[in-house]
Amino acid sequence: MTAETLGQYCQQKIELIDAALSQYIPVDSYQPTIYEAMRYSLLAGGKRLRPLMLMAAADAVGGKGSDYLPVACGLEMIHTYSLIHDDLPAMDNDDYRRGKLTNHKVYGDGMAVLAGDGLLTVAFGTMLSQTEVEPQILIQVVNEIAAAAGPAGMVGGQAIDLISEGQTIDAKTLQYIHQAKTGALFKAALRSGALLAGGSQEQLTALTNYALQFGLAFQITDDILDVVGTQDKIGKPVGSDVKNHKATYVTLYTLAGAKQLAQQTVNEALSSLRGFGPEAAILRELVEHLINREA
Amino acid sequence: MTAETLGQYCQQKIELIDAALSQYIPVDSYQPTIYEAMRYSLLAGGKRLRPLMLMAAADAVGGKGSDYLPVACGLEMIHTYSLIHDDLPAMDNDDYRRGKLTNHKVYGDGMAVLAGDGLLTVAFGTMLSQTEVEPQILIQVVNEIAAAAGPAGMVGGQAIDLISEGQTIDAKTLQYIHQAKTGALFKAALRSGALLAGGSQEQLTALTNYALQFGLAFQITDDILDVVGTQDKIGKPVGSDVKNHKATYVTLYTLAGAKQLAQQTVNEALSSLRGFGPEAAILRELVEHLINREA
Repeated sequence: MTAETLGQYCQQKIELIDAALSQYIPVDSYQPTIYEAMRYSLLAGGKRLRPLMLMAAADAVGGKGSDYLPVACGLEMIHTYSLIHDDLPAMDNDDYRRGKLTNHKVYGDGMAVLAGDGLLTVAFGTMLSQTEVEPQILIQVVNEIAAAAGPAGMVGGQAIDLISEGQTIDAKTLQYIHQAKTGALFKAALRSGALLAGGSQEQLTALTNYALQFGLAFQITDDILDVVGTQDKIGKPVGSDVKNHKATYVTLYTLAGAKQLAQQTVNEALSSLRGFGPEAAILRELVEHLINREA
Repeated sequence: MTAETLGQYCQQKIELIDAALSQYIPVDSYQPTIYEAMRYSLLAGGKRLRPLMLMAAADAVGGKGSDYLPVACGLEMIHTYSLIHDDLPAMDNDDYRRGKLTNHKVYGDGMAVLAGDGLLTVAFGTMLSQTEVEPQILIQVVNEIAAAAGPAGMVGGQAIDLISEGQTIDAKTLQYIHQAKTGALFKAALRSGALLAGGSQEQLTALTNYALQFGLAFQITDDILDVVGTQDKIGKPVGSDVKNHKATYVTLYTLAGAKQLAQQTVNEALSSLRGFGPEAAILRELVEHLINREA
């Protein structure tokens, strides 16, 4: 598969995802503000990486990714809520996200807290509206996603991140933070796709390994972009990690070391897919694309 | 049933609920802070009204309330997260809750945001671990709870509350705020208990009506307590609604008018239970108790 094919696949799926997200969180006439605040961040044109991964994993085990829009979109809502809360003055205090003012800069801190709460809550309702799957499997999937998003996963990673700010942390803690903050939800996305589409235990194990490497490569390249990217492309000020005294893969390993580690991690992700045929092409392209991404 | 019997019933059930809550959110050695922050508010000895209502509704339709601890405790986690976020400086900016310092006064604003996020997320995982029920019914129940807790319910009510602060609002808006902020989750608690325990459509309708009246009576008596209560009993400074220029049933209807309205609403709640026998005794006691409550 060529990069062009990956682009077409993603574009087509992103259109489906964006349309579904807009339906799940509609404009509301009685109380416009909370819905508007939720839509502001949700429909700000993210990469939709988590829903895409769920769909690509479903494809990889022989299913049809687009059958699982409710669960896929729930993942994107969870991701978006975490960004809104992460940007708050009480947390990272960021003014820009995806090239736009952050939620609290537009709607105020209190409404931004509520917009995040609303998205997290609707995420679960949306996921639980998924049909095309045995109820017992759906319960397992949503349960795994809750575990990945909670204090043993994403929320826990953000808590350690918050505590560690301004402190020197070691490589092991850094890896834990990212595994919990980002990796856990990637893993849940991939496993969910495979579970929903009836993947085998062997496929689940392979995709779990892929997910761990993908998450790591994603974070390393994120840290690299914070140094070498442009505000125009990444949508937030370059060097904000340095400004916030955050430990990153670049500060720990140097830029060259981080780039080498990223390539090595991508290679490991690719080898975890060796048992799959061409139906895993998108997953292969997705992780290879990380090395050359600009945003 | 006497008030003493109600007291015994509640005490016994609250012990079950508190023990289960402590198990669902355990002490964690690797990252103690986020779990400690969640436990601080969750185990602060609330009235556990929502889980009690779920159990009493299950009892009322002939089931066994204590079979449904996971869903019941999920409701309490959702309630507690909403209090933590509601107390934040960006929202109501309260320093005390249930007689203790609020979460953000102890752990800081950022950690309090995360503690709330964590509780909301674990709530869904916990509810979805419920056994003793058909998966399809569980999905319906958790879906209803998500709807009640989200922007069309609790979060939406808090959003309008936030927007209305310092403004004069009319009786209709006040009723909408409370129905959404408090009533929706009471309704979900009662309906969940009935659905989980296999109640009939007729019983569901009756309990839905009961829930609406209960929610209203609860809010009216809450507003009365803010004027006539003591800080020692209600655990937060008396008169904080007045301090925050909040519209309440007392400011809208006078104290005497609010008391009359409370009694009338309790009577309506009782009549919606007329189709039930003695197995609904706890639900009758719970709403009658509202009139005389001190906290």
